[in-house]
Amino acid sequence: MAEVLGCWIDGIAGDSVPADDRGLQYGDGLSETILVRNGRARFLDAHLARLDLGCQRLGIGFSTSVELRAEITRTVSQAPASAILKLIVTRGSGPRRGYAPRGTFAPRRVLSLFAAPALDDSQRGVDARIATIRLGENPALAGIKHLNRLENVLAASEPGHELVFESLLLDAADHVIGGTMTNVFAVKSGRLYTAPVDRCGVAGVMRSVVLRQAASLGIACELRRLALAEFLVADEAFITNVRIGVVPLRRVGEHSFMSNLAPTLGASIEPLDA
Amino acid sequence: MAEVLGCWIDGIAGDSVPADDRGLQYGDGLSETILVRNGRARFLDAHLARLDLGCQRLGIGFSTSVELRAEITRTVSQAPASAILKLIVTRGSGPRRGYAPRGTFAPRRVLSLFAAPALDDSQRGVDARIATIRLGENPALAGIKHLNRLENVLAASEPGHELVFESLLLDAADHVIGGTMTNVFAVKSGRLYTAPVDRCGVAGVMRSVVLRQAASLGIACELRRLALAEFLVADEAFITNVRIGVVPLRRVGEHSFMSNLAPTLGASIEPLDA
Repeated sequence: MAEVLGCWIDGIAGDSVPADDRGLQYGDGLSETILVRNGRARFLDAHLARLDLGCQRLGIGFSTSVELRAEITRTVSQAPASAILKLIVTRGSGPRRGYAPRGTFAPRRVLSLFAAPALDDSQRGVDARIATIRLGENPALAGIKHLNRLENVLAASEPGHELVFESLLLDAADHVIGGTMTNVFAVKSGRLYTAPVDRCGVAGVMRSVVLRQAASLGIACELRRLALAEFLVADEAFITNVRIGVVPLRRVGEHSFMSNLAPTLGASIEPLDA
Repeated sequence: MAEVLGCWIDGIAGDSVPADDRGLQYGDGLSETILVRNGRARFLDAHLARLDLGCQRLGIGFSTSVELRAEITRTVSQAPASAILKLIVTRGSGPRRGYAPRGTFAPRRVLSLFAAPALDDSQRGVDARIATIRLGENPALAGIKHLNRLENVLAASEPGHELVFESLLLDAADHVIGGTMTNVFAVKSGRLYTAPVDRCGVAGVMRSVVLRQAASLGIACELRRLALAEFLVADEAFITNVRIGVVPLRRVGEHSFMSNLAPTLGASIEPLDA
């Protein structure tokens, strides 16, 4: 990739992984995409906590350690003002072929640092479309950021995706769950809504930050799956992830939204863990 | 892995792939597990046809070629009497970070050859259990053998899996769809049933062979999702994949099955494409 600044496999500079890694073979692993700002990994605690949770859910014997934290801190200290750190943890290479993770595993971590272009004004408001592909549901895989991401890839491959900033993903019953790379919020009569991620979707770190911040600002927030029709008549809608922060949705298809709460929320989050 | 006999990346001997390969990053690719018998890749046409279909479904610009076929033939000609060839094709390394496969891709292929222990008598009949995890449904991903296989991994990780030969996977409505590494058939009053794979599950190569062979033997076969309760009262049940062929299910939990049609079918398939 053009923009890669460095890559480390298990702490050692390198840019390849063994072909028998279960991350490649089965998507048997997890990832975190962390914003680096002025030499600091932002919201690192939340990222590492989600990673630990994901490892527990998949039964991967990896837990984030003081050493990993030190490695990340060292890596990002030399990064440009704005960068992205991607951390992948896989179950590693198995002693045997096959799905069953029998025997002893040494989980493998891949740390990659990328240059991130500074956000521009366009991100004061962006357009989205509704993806054609629907999300499948699996409570065992919902919420965590595992490496089985073909639904996101296919949504982002659909014709029309390149014309907008994001494609929104619905479940089979046409509820709005999230975007390919973002979580999605709606505002109705001053109340915030975002989908629970217990059947599909990812529990984004910025989603948690927004939920916490809304609570501290006294904004009511409800975890609810809105039907697409309900979503489209919301007063306001916005998308979130750690790279872009809180970005208002200007239009989704034919529907326009106001922008009112999102800029306030975004501005109040901006200085957090900066 | 202990049993690996050789590994080739894009035709060149090697055992690692770039860390930015989308197969690792997102499970953005497909695999085929091919039985090698006496220096021949068995049912190679069917494997390559399924791979081509999978690439079309995922929009991966790879199609199996005369060269790939020659490479496979060359690779397996020196293999032991019984071996497994695993072929992975990924979308390759992207020019940019992110889900959207923008720009030009050079799909990457990973060919690995493994020693395969000869099947023993125990495979005249095996036991299975019902996995706790349920399969999610996504018509866009069903049928093809893509690299998003965490459901299979989690099923094979459940306590009790190590005590049986296979764990059977149900959908959310408790229909029997398949096993972690096999397709599943039931026999009721001389009629064969197997699940359609249009919402979840994989269209196994041996499954197709069995369906064709049953038709040619005049055995009625129906693609139908049997509820677990219906499945468990079947006269007979068996599992299939290219490595094991047709193997009767002796027991699933408390339920015992006869073995009648499976050995006949298995024996009639044995000499095919040998």
